[in-house]
Amino acid sequence: MKKAAVIMGSDSDWPVVKGACQQLEAFGIPYEAHILSAHRTPAQAAEFARSARANGFGVLICAAGMAAHLAGAFAGSSTLPVIGIPMKGGAMDGLDALLATVQMPSGIPVATVAINGAKNAAVLAAQILAVSDDALADKLDAARAEMAAQIAEKEAKLQAELQA
Amino acid sequence: MKKAAVIMGSDSDWPVVKGACQQLEAFGIPYEAHILSAHRTPAQAAEFARSARANGFGVLICAAGMAAHLAGAFAGSSTLPVIGIPMKGGAMDGLDALLATVQMPSGIPVATVAINGAKNAAVLAAQILAVSDDALADKLDAARAEMAAQIAEKEAKLQAELQA
Amino acid sequence: MKKAAVIMGSDSDWPVVKGACQQLEAFGIPYEAHILSAHRTPAQAAEFARSARANGFGVLICAAGMAAHLAGAFAGSSTLPVIGIPMKGGAMDGLDALLATVQMPSGIPVATVAINGAKNAAVLAAQILAVSDDALADKLDAARAEMAAQIAEKEAKLQAELQA
Amino acid sequence: MKKAAVIMGSDSDWPVVKGACQQLEAFGIPYEAHILSAHRTPAQAAEFARSARANGFGVLICAAGMAAHLAGAFAGSSTLPVIGIPMKGGAMDGLDALLATVQMPSGIPVATVAINGAKNAAVLAAQILAVSDDALADKLDAARAEMAAQIAEKEAKLQAELQA
Amino acid sequence: MKKAAVIMGSDSDWPVVKGACQQLEAFGIPYEAHILSAHRTPAQAAEFARSARANGFGVLICAAGMAAHLAGAFAGSSTLPVIGIPMKGGAMDGLDALLATVQMPSGIPVATVAINGAKNAAVLAAQILAVSDDALADKLDAARAEMAAQIAEKEAKLQAELQA
Amino acid sequence: MKKAAVIMGSDSDWPVVKGACQQLEAFGIPYEAHILSAHRTPAQAAEFARSARANGFGVLICAAGMAAHLAGAFAGSSTLPVIGIPMKGGAMDGLDALLATVQMPSGIPVATVAINGAKNAAVLAAQILAVSDDALADKLDAARAEMAAQIAEKEAKLQAELQA
Amino acid sequence: MKKAAVIMGSDSDWPVVKGACQQLEAFGIPYEAHILSAHRTPAQAAEFARSARANGFGVLICAAGMAAHLAGAFAGSSTLPVIGIPMKGGAMDGLDALLATVQMPSGIPVATVAINGAKNAAVLAAQILAVSDDALADKLDAARAEMAAQIAEKEAKLQAELQA
Amino acid sequence: MKKAAVIMGSDSDWPVVKGACQQLEAFGIPYEAHILSAHRTPAQAAEFARSARANGFGVLICAAGMAAHLAGAFAGSSTLPVIGIPMKGGAMDGLDALLATVQMPSGIPVATVAINGAKNAAVLAAQILAVSDDALADKLDAARAEMAAQIAEKEAKLQAELQA
Repeated sequence: MKKAAVIMGSDSDWPVVKGACQQLEAFGIPYEAHILSAHRTPAQAAEFARSARANGFGVLICAAGMAAHLAGAFAGSSTLPVIGIPMKGGAMDGLDALLATVQMPSGIPVATVAINGAKNAAVLAAQILAVSDDALADKLDAARAEMAAQIAEKEAKLQAELQA
Repeated sequence: MKKAAVIMGSDSDWPVVKGACQQLEAFGIPYEAHILSAHRTPAQAAEFARSARANGFGVLICAAGMAAHLAGAFAGSSTLPVIGIPMKGGAMDGLDALLATVQMPSGIPVATVAINGAKNAAVLAAQILAVSDDALADKLDAARAEMAAQIAEKEAKLQAELQA
Repeated sequence: MKKAAVIMGSDSDWPVVKGACQQLEAFGIPYEAHILSAHRTPAQAAEFARSARANGFGVLICAAGMAAHLAGAFAGSSTLPVIGIPMKGGAMDGLDALLATVQMPSGIPVATVAINGAKNAAVLAAQILAVSDDALADKLDAARAEMAAQIAEKEAKLQAELQA
Repeated sequence: MKKAAVIMGSDSDWPVVKGACQQLEAFGIPYEAHILSAHRTPAQAAEFARSARANGFGVLICAAGMAAHLAGAFAGSSTLPVIGIPMKGGAMDGLDALLATVQMPSGIPVATVAINGAKNAAVLAAQILAVSDDALADKLDAARAEMAAQIAEKEAKLQAELQA
Repeated sequence: MKKAAVIMGSDSDWPVVKGACQQLEAFGIPYEAHILSAHRTPAQAAEFARSARANGFGVLICAAGMAAHLAGAFAGSSTLPVIGIPMKGGAMDGLDALLATVQMPSGIPVATVAINGAKNAAVLAAQILAVSDDALADKLDAARAEMAAQIAEKEAKLQAELQA
Repeated sequence: MKKAAVIMGSDSDWPVVKGACQQLEAFGIPYEAHILSAHRTPAQAAEFARSARANGFGVLICAAGMAAHLAGAFAGSSTLPVIGIPMKGGAMDGLDALLATVQMPSGIPVATVAINGAKNAAVLAAQILAVSDDALADKLDAARAEMAAQIAEKEAKLQAELQA
Repeated sequence: MKKAAVIMGSDSDWPVVKGACQQLEAFGIPYEAHILSAHRTPAQAAEFARSARANGFGVLICAAGMAAHLAGAFAGSSTLPVIGIPMKGGAMDGLDALLATVQMPSGIPVATVAINGAKNAAVLAAQILAVSDDALADKLDAARAEMAAQIAEKEAKLQAELQA
Repeated sequence: MKKAAVIMGSDSDWPVVKGACQQLEAFGIPYEAHILSAHRTPAQAAEFARSARANGFGVLICAAGMAAHLAGAFAGSSTLPVIGIPMKGGAMDGLDALLATVQMPSGIPVATVAINGAKNAAVLAAQILAVSDDALADKLDAARAEMAAQIAEKEAKLQAELQA
């Protein structure tokens, strides 16, 4: 299976971003996680993006906050699907990061998920890899069924509470 | 190759949405386009989403405006990757549609592109399908090179204009 | 009397949403509360909405946050009045939920109340049921008079404090 | 059947607001339309609201823009359900009116619809009156079916266009 | 001297609003403070506003949050200058209250100060009363000189700190 | 009677700002209008503000757009009441000007009116001068009655139209 | 004198951006203008930035819209002062570009000017170069005096108009 | 070397603003820090700005919150480059200060950095002074290399953590 890359612009993003890694592991998807900055290590970031397909990656997840350029920078240097996680934080609480991530120019998309949506970035990565991987698609369906079961369990608990 | 579906909530979205179809055609990706409404034909929309993988689709593109639920509704009924295009329009100029599309709950991502970003939705769909399709990946790289060539041409024109 | 339904997308909404239930009880309105998700259990949510009128419900209250589709999904599958409570939370403090709830397309309204306005959702439900129920209308008038009395009491207390 | 009242703060709102009146007529709901201002004729507005239930009204629709107080003023002087239409316009394009309409204090709800959502205000009024009026509920279901039929027709037209 | 009225919509506003009262006292301006709600006690609020000039008031200060109608309601029932204090709070942190207070229709102004700007409301009230009261104008100039002196003192302290 | 000053930062503001002058004339209030810029002629602006009370002015109206500093600059150099008109325009449609005008620091208020609210600035100026001028207060009451009469006339016209 | 570089992400920015070039010419500052895209020609953009100081540039002006990464990308690859012009346009009218330009991470500033503020970017560039160039500083002072003279002329015209 | 001035509108800004001073010290740039208010000590602020170039300053850093006029006031009275730091705080979390700082009129730019971006203001000041100071430019390059080294160190630590 192709690998996922999980890139963050700062180690301060790790507490949120590791949620993506845990979800990738839960699906059995091989991944690498790296700290690379669009502004502080731009050459390394560009080099990673340019060689990502050749290095066996199938999808790139990039997390950044504020003037969040990381996903866009990766999207500009690779034609792999790039998933952007706008990080909450600072003065605008993530709206700045959301707009800086999603409002990409024509021809260079970033697949943007919710602010701090690290788990969803991993689920989306899994959905992308599952297009050509039926076993992974089955895992996604199973995870969805599990979610529905959890809702049903909570509903049952609520009914019990309301009867009490 | 798996098909792409291009779904819009209203025929008034078509002038923008057909940009996605044209881009899919340019990449030689088979697709279907449909009008299905999360609110006006919810049962048909859900049925389409539920059977999409079995019907040979690999990726779903959904365009909607205002309280844009279409992409989210598809994402709730399919584990295929769902790309959401927030449509510009009305009082909030698309910010309402962007937030209604991207801020999805945990476990159910929508890959959101820019407001009115129909062409980028198609490029992202192509990137997703290209993960397991080297010929399509080559087309993506060629399109990227073409973009750079266009920039170079415009730069040359500007330099000529500045010398004049 | 017809029943009210109070639906929440997640059990994490319960601390706020139970304010609606308490207010319904105060007015003596029969109700059911359920956890149903527009994204995680879409089929059950749609089924509940479709059969709600036949099952004796007169009004549906739906609470959801972020890309808040729950009220809209119910409104798409029922012609009963649907009241939407946008839940505060996450990065946008509920503005995303407000816009995702209120900006519904033509023909499918959601009666939206304030962010986290669970109590007001219940008052609105009571006002709706009271259109054909004079005894309930009397209770609403009494509650309004009680509010005015509370203001008068606080005003008296303030005057006492200012004299002191 | 109880009447609907359609109140606007200014005659400049009429081109949008008459959409509500036309929809009420289409459902056969008796209504009155009036110009009453929360700021320019506050006493008359309050008097209308206070006597509305006694005068045979079942639901009140109020449209106002900017610092949109009209719906809130009516809600403060009546316990009938009050539907607020935030009018688009001026510098904030209706977001100011939306917030001024929806963010009501505890105990005094306004059932808020989309910015300029005059037709939806009327549909919501019909849904409210239909809680105790099965014939009107049937009309609402028929209108919903008609909407679905229109979508189907547009979908057919799109398929024809795509085949051509 | 004419009196100032300080009106708040809820006793929960008092911790902020009393800052206005303290400032009025510091200037020796007679005032009354009251709790009156545009939504919960609309008739009393309107009556207070209508008779305010006859009752010896020269300026009205109104504080309210969220869909902040109080200042607008007073401005609709009196031609005295009405100063509006948008209260911070709830989901929009006071931006909703600011817009609901300031965006008044033509002919009915509200003199709006900053979110939670209770002290400034009192200073503005003093400035208004000082137009025809030279002794009060002198107090305002003295207060301004005192502010400048405080800045100078802090500047001196900073220089000392920087030298250390 | 004390004079009003109407100051604008740029002659491009004049088409809106002259609405304030016309309203002042309608009330018979003496005024001067000037172009003075907080950024381009800061010394002249400060000098005008500092000497305004001595020069017979009773109230200062300042109109500016974008980073609208004019009203704040006047408020910093005079203790007369300063009314700020945030001008609509440019990218933010006046929200930038509104925030730059209203969010003043403690001790230095600006009485802010609606975006482009030139007429209301003049009405507020009249209300301020009328605190000690009963004849002007009578004019304000008459203008208010005239507004109500206009609403009544429009209401009558609407009823005629609805009967037709 | 060191050169200024004026970089735009797209030739569609030229009608606004040439205002910067004209202002640089008016000050007699040597400059080059180029079209370079952070996303479409990232390698060339990075190379230009990296070698800019060595190539005789003293200041870099970058204009871009939407997810405006250009200025940030230049700032990441050069320690020259980088001035960012957020371009108005698209769905968010330039607020997205403003936030994407200004909210830079610690250590990598972008000197951001107003949305579409091309002329001001050039003035700022001149101010930067004038720190060590007294003749240019004199030109800046002269331009400032000219602005004040224009205001005075418009003020005189307004007074003439008001007397007429 | 020319000096930098670091001006704050209030001593409450000092905890953030001293970050700018520390960064200037790290680069060996002489500076003065002062408390001067655009509103409370406007004459002193204007005087400081007017004489800044003659007094040996090369760049001015101004920090202010809310209706942040300080940087703009300095820019109106000096042609030195003025760097504005919008301070976070109060109801709008700094968005008001950002807009009040950056949206300057034509001819009077403020080089705006991120909300609370005190360190970046100092880095930008250093970049400006380094245009004609190669030793300082070398320090900037060294600081940039140090940043990249820190990222590399954190990356190494992350890889170690992931292997464990």
